[in-house]
Amino acid sequence: MSAESPFKVGLLGYGTVGSAFAELLEERAEEIERFNGRRPSIAGVLTRQRGSFEEIMAEAEIIVEVMGGLEPAREYLLAAMRSGRHVVTANKQLLSQHGEELFETAREHDVRLRFEAAVAGTVPVVRVLEESLAATRIERIHGIVNGTTNYILTAMAHGSSYAQALAEAQSSGYAEADPSDDVSGRDAAAKMAILARLAFGTPVHLDDVRYEGIENLRSDDLEYARELGLGLKLIGTAERTRDGLSVSVHPTFLYSGHPLAAISGSFNAVTVESETITEITLSGPGAGGRQTASAVLGDVVSVMTGGARPPAPPLPLRLIEDVESAFYLHLDVADRPGVLASVTKVLGEHDVSIKSVVQRGMGENARLVMVTHPVIESSLRAAMAQVGEFDFVRSTPRTIRVIEEEFV
Amino acid sequence: MSAESPFKVGLLGYGTVGSAFAELLEERAEEIERFNGRRPSIAGVLTRQRGSFEEIMAEAEIIVEVMGGLEPAREYLLAAMRSGRHVVTANKQLLSQHGEELFETAREHDVRLRFEAAVAGTVPVVRVLEESLAATRIERIHGIVNGTTNYILTAMAHGSSYAQALAEAQSSGYAEADPSDDVSGRDAAAKMAILARLAFGTPVHLDDVRYEGIENLRSDDLEYARELGLGLKLIGTAERTRDGLSVSVHPTFLYSGHPLAAISGSFNAVTVESETITEITLSGPGAGGRQTASAVLGDVVSVMTGGARPPAPPLPLRLIEDVESAFYLHLDVADRPGVLASVTKVLGEHDVSIKSVVQRGMGENARLVMVTHPVIESSLRAAMAQVGEFDFVRSTPRTIRVIEEEFV
Repeated sequence: MSAESPFKVGLLGYGTVGSAFAELLEERAEEIERFNGRRPSIAGVLTRQRGSFEEIMAEAEIIVEVMGGLEPAREYLLAAMRSGRHVVTANKQLLSQHGEELFETAREHDVRLRFEAAVAGTVPVVRVLEESLAATRIERIHGIVNGTTNYILTAMAHGSSYAQALAEAQSSGYAEADPSDDVSGRDAAAKMAILARLAFGTPVHLDDVRYEGIENLRSDDLEYARELGLGLKLIGTAERTRDGLSVSVHPTFLYSGHPLAAISGSFNAVTVESETITEITLSGPGAGGRQTASAVLGDVVSVMTGGARPPAPPLPLRLIEDVESAFYLHLDVADRPGVLASVTKVLGEHDVSIKSVVQRGMGENARLVMVTHPVIESSLRAAMAQVGEFDFVRSTPRTIRVIEEEFV
Repeated sequence: MSAESPFKVGLLGYGTVGSAFAELLEERAEEIERFNGRRPSIAGVLTRQRGSFEEIMAEAEIIVEVMGGLEPAREYLLAAMRSGRHVVTANKQLLSQHGEELFETAREHDVRLRFEAAVAGTVPVVRVLEESLAATRIERIHGIVNGTTNYILTAMAHGSSYAQALAEAQSSGYAEADPSDDVSGRDAAAKMAILARLAFGTPVHLDDVRYEGIENLRSDDLEYARELGLGLKLIGTAERTRDGLSVSVHPTFLYSGHPLAAISGSFNAVTVESETITEITLSGPGAGGRQTASAVLGDVVSVMTGGARPPAPPLPLRLIEDVESAFYLHLDVADRPGVLASVTKVLGEHDVSIKSVVQRGMGENARLVMVTHPVIESSLRAAMAQVGEFDFVRSTPRTIRVIEEEFV
C-alpha cells in the first residue's frame, strides 16, 4: 500500500491553528499511512503574504481552510468544491451564515465537506450526530459550546465578580482582548446553528438563533441559585417542539444531577437526547491551537477513509421563538406584608406555577428568589412586566432560564 | 436517488436486540433513505427455529449478527465476509476472543466490520476511536463499560449492602438472574480488550486482561473512602506505559473531580486521554434492547455511507501486568501504640509513600485506612504481605486501586 501516491493537502491559513495543523500532520503522517494506505502531505500553504490559491488547487486533493472570516474563505471553499476537491474547515462564522450554500455545493459536486473543529472544541459531536445518530430521531441538544464563558462562569461560581473572572480569563489566555464575540453568546449561537442543522435537518442561520450573553450576570444570582441547588452555565439549546424547532443560547441554571452541571473550566460538552438512546453526553477541552488542529486532521483522515456524506437536503421545520422553560426569578422588594401573596397572584393569573422560593429580608429591603415550573416564555414575560409595576418592587425583575431535568 | 435498489440486511438472531433492530429499521427506513439514497430493508431472519443462512446470504449485502455466543456466530461472520458481505455485530465475546481473525478477514476481503454496540452501550466510542482519534496518539483510556456493576455501586454508595444492591438491580432488570459475567468484571474485560485493540493497535485477547469484580467489596470500604473524598467505580483501564500496554479492570476509587466520578446508575462512560486533545469523555445509558439496536442500526448506516475501514494490521506493544497505581489500603488492627509507625516503616521500605490516612479506634480494634501515592503494584503487594504478618493485624489487608488525577 505504501506505493500509493501521497494524499496532498492544500492549507489556507497559517495562524495558530494552521501552523499547529502542519506540524501535527507531519508527526502523524506515518501512522495515518499505516491505517489508510496513503501518506498525507502539505501541497502548499496560502497566507495573506504568500502562496497562490491556483497553484495549491492544481496540486491538492483536499483543501483545509483555517483562515477564518467570511471572505475570501467562502469563495475559496466554493471554488475548491466546484473543482471536485474535498474540503475541511474550522470556520463557524462561515458555516452558520452560508452553510446551505456550502452543503448544496458539496452535494452537487459529490465532494466531502467536514467541519468537526468548527463546533465544540475537541468534542467529536459533528461526527456523532452525522453517523451514530442517523439511526435515531433527535429530540433535543443542550451544549456548553464556548469555553471562554464556561471558564468565566466557573470562576464566578467560586466567588469572583464578572469583571475579575473576565480579567483572569484574559490573563490565562482563555479570553481574547476583545471578548465580545464570546461573552455576548454570539460564538455559541453560531455553533448551535451548525449543530441544529445537523441534528434536525433544518437550515438554521446565525440570525435565527436568539442569544443572550453573560455580561449582565451578577454574583448574587449565582449565590441565590446555589441555595436552590442550581449551578449557572451558558447553555445552547436546539429542540424539537410541537410546532417546529427552537434554537437559542442563554445563561441557564442546572440542577446538580444534570450531566452539564459538572462541566467546568474551559471545557465544552454536548448532551444529545433522543427516544431510542435516552441521552448521551460528550465532553472535552475547548480548543487551543493544537487541539483544533487535531480535530481538523481527524476530518482529513475521515475524508481519506471515505467517511460521511454531506448533510441531506434540508427538510425544514418551522423556527419557533416562544418555547417552554422553567425560570429563575429574582425580585428586589420592600420588606412588607403581602408582597409574596401579590406576586404569586399575578404569576398564577399567567399560568406561572412556582416550584421553590427563597425570601430573605434585609432591613427595609428583601429579596424574593423563585424557580418556576415550565411555562411558555411569553406568559412569563407578561407576568413579570405586571409584577414590575408593583410599587414594592425596587428594581427591574431578573429572569434566568432553568433546565429542570435531573438525569440518572 | 429513490430509484436505487433497497439495501438488503440479513439478520442473525431475533431476541431482544434483534427484534428491536427490525422494528427500529422499519421506523427509520424513510429517513435513512433520505440521507443515503437507498432504503434499508430486512432480507431475512435467522433464528434457531427458522430461516436459512444460505438464503439470507444470497439476498443480503450486509449481515447483522445479534445472536451472541462464539459459535455459530463466528462461522457465519467469517463466511459472510469471505463472500464479500459487510458485517455488523454486537458480540463482545466473539470480538474479544477472535477479533484478529475477524479483522484480518475483513481486510483481506475489503469489507466493513463494525461493532459499536459491542462496547459501551449507546456511547459511540468505537467510532470516535476509529476516526476522530486517528489523528492523535492515545495515551490512556478509562472506562465504566458495564452498566450493571455501576448500578450496584451507585446503590452501595447510597448505603445498600452488596446483596441488597444486587437484588435491587435484578428486580429492576439491570442485572441478570445469573449476574456472574457482570459482577466478576469479565464482561467489562471483554469490552476493554476491544477498546484497547482500537486505541493502541495491539491485539488484546480477553485472556490478556486482568480483571477483578465487585463481589467482594464491602459497604465500609465505600464509607471510609467517602471520608477521603473518593467514590468507587468498576474501572477498565488501557494505558501505554514505558514498556508496553496494560489492560485491566478493577474496582477503583476516584476523586470527585474525575469525569467518571459523576457517572451513576446504569450509565456507561469512557475517557480518552491523548497529548493533543488532553482528554475527552463520552457518556450515555448502558444499553437496553432498543438502545443496542440503535447502535447496531447506526453501524448499518455507517456502512451505507462508506464509513471507516477495518482496523489497521496490528502493531503489537508488549502487554504489561505490573503497572503503577495509587492504592487505598484498609487494615483492621489492634488499637495499641506503635501500630501506625510499624506499618508505615514497612511501606517505606518498599517505596510505598502515603498520601492520606484515616485512623479510627473502636475499643480494642482500630481501622487504618490509607491512600498511597502511585507505586508499582508488585512493590505494594510485597509490602502488604509483610504488613499482614504483624500480630496486630486482625484480618487480611484490603487494597483497592485509586485514580489520582483531578481534572479541570
